[in-house]
Amino acid sequence: MNLQRFELMSALAAGFALSRHNASLTVAESCTGGLVSHWMTSVAGSSRWFDGGIVSYSNALKMSLLDVKEATLNLYGAASAQVAAEMAEGMRRRHRKALTGVPTPLPSSLFALSITGIAGPQGARPGKPVGTVFFGWAGPRGVETECRVFQGSRSEIQHQAAAWGVSGLLARVCRA
Amino acid sequence: MNLQRFELMSALAAGFALSRHNASLTVAESCTGGLVSHWMTSVAGSSRWFDGGIVSYSNALKMSLLDVKEATLNLYGAASAQVAAEMAEGMRRRHRKALTGVPTPLPSSLFALSITGIAGPQGARPGKPVGTVFFGWAGPRGVETECRVFQGSRSEIQHQAAAWGVSGLLARVCRA
Repeated sequence: MNLQRFELMSALAAGFALSRHNASLTVAESCTGGLVSHWMTSVAGSSRWFDGGIVSYSNALKMSLLDVKEATLNLYGAASAQVAAEMAEGMRRRHRKALTGVPTPLPSSLFALSITGIAGPQGARPGKPVGTVFFGWAGPRGVETECRVFQGSRSEIQHQAAAWGVSGLLARVCRA
Repeated sequence: MNLQRFELMSALAAGFALSRHNASLTVAESCTGGLVSHWMTSVAGSSRWFDGGIVSYSNALKMSLLDVKEATLNLYGAASAQVAAEMAEGMRRRHRKALTGVPTPLPSSLFALSITGIAGPQGARPGKPVGTVFFGWAGPRGVETECRVFQGSRSEIQHQAAAWGVSGLLARVCRA
């Protein structure tokens, strides 16, 4: 299966799962820079289960738009499980706030996916080589994080990270 | 030139122009759903001139995250020059606010690009066929908007719209 088909498949699967659960998704992306949002909106009709997201590429936007704490960034770095968790929780809060006052039908549950890491070729840190990516999934059961290290070029790392984030989302929506 | 090379070229050109002018970019995307952000962040080192953006796919997020007025959405529709202008201005305001309190060096000027339209296959309105896309460019000289009608599949319309938005940005940064 070529990459383009895989991307569309993963977006379709996520959309199917979210629709089945009357759920809605937003994403907060740093190192993938909008790739997950692009996959989701490549599906016609995705507005039924995808509301949008925030590409918080700079720390300034992470703090300002997603309420990531400056102390967390200073203590753990932008590529960390702690920041991934705050990004996902911040995105989910913003989403809920955005839906306040919007006419029904509202989704019964909101999910937020966050991705932050080191896509390279620069940016490696001690203990965090290029390809280190942190994920956050926030949903009705709280927030979960995970760290994965991917191999390849900048583009390959971004694509693998986006795919991992979406597959993790799928698992969490299906058991919600 | 294949599409992937064109995307990278346009992002490189935008980055070069923004760097030359010590400027920084954010994007507010609706129908392109993160595609411009993805192109920008496909360039290594793009964090020097790209801060991120907002994928405001739903009207709720347009209002909540970009301060688009409900009255504007009701009067003109989400795919309109008026909404494109408010998206670009809202994005630029959020960007400026995010940079308040951030240590120097600050960019000397901020640009925001917005894209909203009808990528199809559904969603056509009277006088607004599928492929109708509105652009907003906000910068030191104020905000400008433009409407273009693209042909093709959903994906082709999204890609053409992203490319048009970036080339319009390039022109505006170079004459700023």
